[in-house]
Amino acid sequence: MVLSASSDLTARLQTLRAEFPALANKRYFNFGGQGPMPHSALTAMTDAHLTLQTEGPFSNGVNRWIQQSAMAMRQTLAELLTVPVEAMTLTEDVTVGCNIPLWGVDWRAGDRILLTDCEHPGVIAAVQEISRRFQVAVDVCPVLATAQGGDPVAVIEAALQPRTRMLVVSHILWNTGQLLPLTEIVQLCHAHTPEPVWVLVDAAQSVGMMPLDLTATEVDFYAFTGHKWCCGPAGLGGLYVRPEVRDAIAPTFIGWRSINTDAQANPTGWQPNGQRYEVATSDYPLMAGLQAALDRHQQWGTAAERWQRLCDLSHALWERLQAHPKIRPVSATPPPSGLISFEILDGSGQPSPMHHTQLVKDLEAENILLRTLLHPHCVRACVHYFTLESEVQALGDRLCQWVDAL
Amino acid sequence: MVLSASSDLTARLQTLRAEFPALANKRYFNFGGQGPMPHSALTAMTDAHLTLQTEGPFSNGVNRWIQQSAMAMRQTLAELLTVPVEAMTLTEDVTVGCNIPLWGVDWRAGDRILLTDCEHPGVIAAVQEISRRFQVAVDVCPVLATAQGGDPVAVIEAALQPRTRMLVVSHILWNTGQLLPLTEIVQLCHAHTPEPVWVLVDAAQSVGMMPLDLTATEVDFYAFTGHKWCCGPAGLGGLYVRPEVRDAIAPTFIGWRSINTDAQANPTGWQPNGQRYEVATSDYPLMAGLQAALDRHQQWGTAAERWQRLCDLSHALWERLQAHPKIRPVSATPPPSGLISFEILDGSGQPSPMHHTQLVKDLEAENILLRTLLHPHCVRACVHYFTLESEVQALGDRLCQWVDAL
Repeated sequence: MVLSASSDLTARLQTLRAEFPALANKRYFNFGGQGPMPHSALTAMTDAHLTLQTEGPFSNGVNRWIQQSAMAMRQTLAELLTVPVEAMTLTEDVTVGCNIPLWGVDWRAGDRILLTDCEHPGVIAAVQEISRRFQVAVDVCPVLATAQGGDPVAVIEAALQPRTRMLVVSHILWNTGQLLPLTEIVQLCHAHTPEPVWVLVDAAQSVGMMPLDLTATEVDFYAFTGHKWCCGPAGLGGLYVRPEVRDAIAPTFIGWRSINTDAQANPTGWQPNGQRYEVATSDYPLMAGLQAALDRHQQWGTAAERWQRLCDLSHALWERLQAHPKIRPVSATPPPSGLISFEILDGSGQPSPMHHTQLVKDLEAENILLRTLLHPHCVRACVHYFTLESEVQALGDRLCQWVDAL
Repeated sequence: MVLSASSDLTARLQTLRAEFPALANKRYFNFGGQGPMPHSALTAMTDAHLTLQTEGPFSNGVNRWIQQSAMAMRQTLAELLTVPVEAMTLTEDVTVGCNIPLWGVDWRAGDRILLTDCEHPGVIAAVQEISRRFQVAVDVCPVLATAQGGDPVAVIEAALQPRTRMLVVSHILWNTGQLLPLTEIVQLCHAHTPEPVWVLVDAAQSVGMMPLDLTATEVDFYAFTGHKWCCGPAGLGGLYVRPEVRDAIAPTFIGWRSINTDAQANPTGWQPNGQRYEVATSDYPLMAGLQAALDRHQQWGTAAERWQRLCDLSHALWERLQAHPKIRPVSATPPPSGLISFEILDGSGQPSPMHHTQLVKDLEAENILLRTLLHPHCVRACVHYFTLESEVQALGDRLCQWVDAL
């Protein structure tokens, strides 16, 4: 793949990139860890704080502003996911979003949860605690190996058991960058007998990266964050709960945002929508920050245009790394995502965790930011739609040079 | 009580108050809802965001900075509460802090939870859901009436039953401003037979208002927020869990911050300290904001000095309102706290919710901020240590004038 951008495109990218302070002093390839924030998001948060202080901080006027801002945020996120706004819950992060449905099920002893072998340790630990408390069995299916070929849907199908009630799966695998076929997975799970299997998606790596129509997928639970590919602030994410399953999933952590009250402030029942899973006071200016970040992406181009460009860049990086004899991408084919993970091979052709750690350290000292992953042990480089062709080229050069010097 | 401040004190107060943008354009009496933030807190948050963007936002260096900042925050909060740092958990808000111990108990059918009749609706709703899920009975004891006289410890004692396992109680009642005798309540509950009763405290109104030595009280769980009397940003609070009970309280909402992992990123167990109840990614700059706010209070005076001044001011306000024939404070004695709630009496001497609502609305239009409460229906005015004597005087004047004009 030849990397080139028109001069018009390059100019538009430079204009956009100049709005991100994080991009000014480094080559940034950790979007899967956290995205950089545009100035407009930082300014929007500061402005929101000042508005709260000027109008309140606690007053009837401020309370109305918070209610309106939260509803506008849910609306923006609902549009991003193509779901009804009443299905949206605001959360602190993607992990809280996964915990909500996990703890909301009326688990029965002997029920089973199916995890893939590519889920995040925090989510695994939550599932293990549910297993302990409710005598629920946990199965793990090997989708990691399908990065080398094979059908992840068939892998999941083979692992479903009669008592399986929930599948926990990432939409884009954080280690291999693989994009799983969500619609097919949901169809498989919902057709399961004797009972349908609920599908809980860890969407840490998909929201903000790719166009989404969750209503079409019929997925049950989709937990995400605003601070990675959306480039919003850390501390604000969301959860989509399919309206048809809402009444089956009870709120667990509960506060004044979860409920309605009567004239004496007694709780009278859950909020009729996804707000029932929200708890209490949050850092509301974060909403202004995420809105500003999402607005900026939308101004730049459609979700489809941004995703196409991001995939072109990651494809090019994958090809470059694949071509080096001592570098092995963990995916045997270019993943349709911004995540490119790779192993550095030692003299006997084995992946070298020591090299991975040293490479990330050396490059961080040069203001080139990558990260290591532990399972499989590898180095991960991420590209966003506003990554430059020249950056991908320079990263490829530097990685090959570093490995050649071993 | 005669209100006066020395000219030196007045000058120091004016210097301090000039640092709070929220105080510039209004008379603020809603500290129990949310405290105003000093400029230094706003600046610290903006600086922290810029540091994250400059150094990362995701890098090994940033990760170290976050770990260090979080530990420094826990240390500051531990000192504020006089507890060991390993007993501290950072949370999003006080309600999350209440949910953690509530959901961490190994409830058995037939267990009982004792609530007072002054707890917050969000906490009540959480307790009701636990009741439904685990067949736990809920008792409610009438401490509200002790605002008119009587012993809240005796009220709690009378409501304890053999199967009671947890008392949920506020340290300072958000409606009456009453300060409950925590040490005595804990002694009573821990001496309960056949099993000790755990004490979970909703500390929304006490932390930042008064000096605290939680170790001396032997309280089990103490949940609080940084955005009320501490004057930090909304979205950051904490939970103290007495080290001796930690192993009895399992984490519920779980993420990467809760656990340790092995070289392959598999969870290997809980964090050995209060971090086991933390979940995942948060808005870390909030920590810089809360640190700055707490530093500023500390510079001004000791916790004991600040509390004394605050109580003097609230005492004066209580006396002023008590003296008016159509205004009735909900506490028959001046509460040792910054919360003064009162009813406006109609022609037949009954409290008038309509008047309460209208008063708050009218005064908000004059940039005098109070709030209504629903149980009992009343108006609440809060004073902080940096409230001015002249503000208390002016508020008393305006309230009397408003009521006289009815």
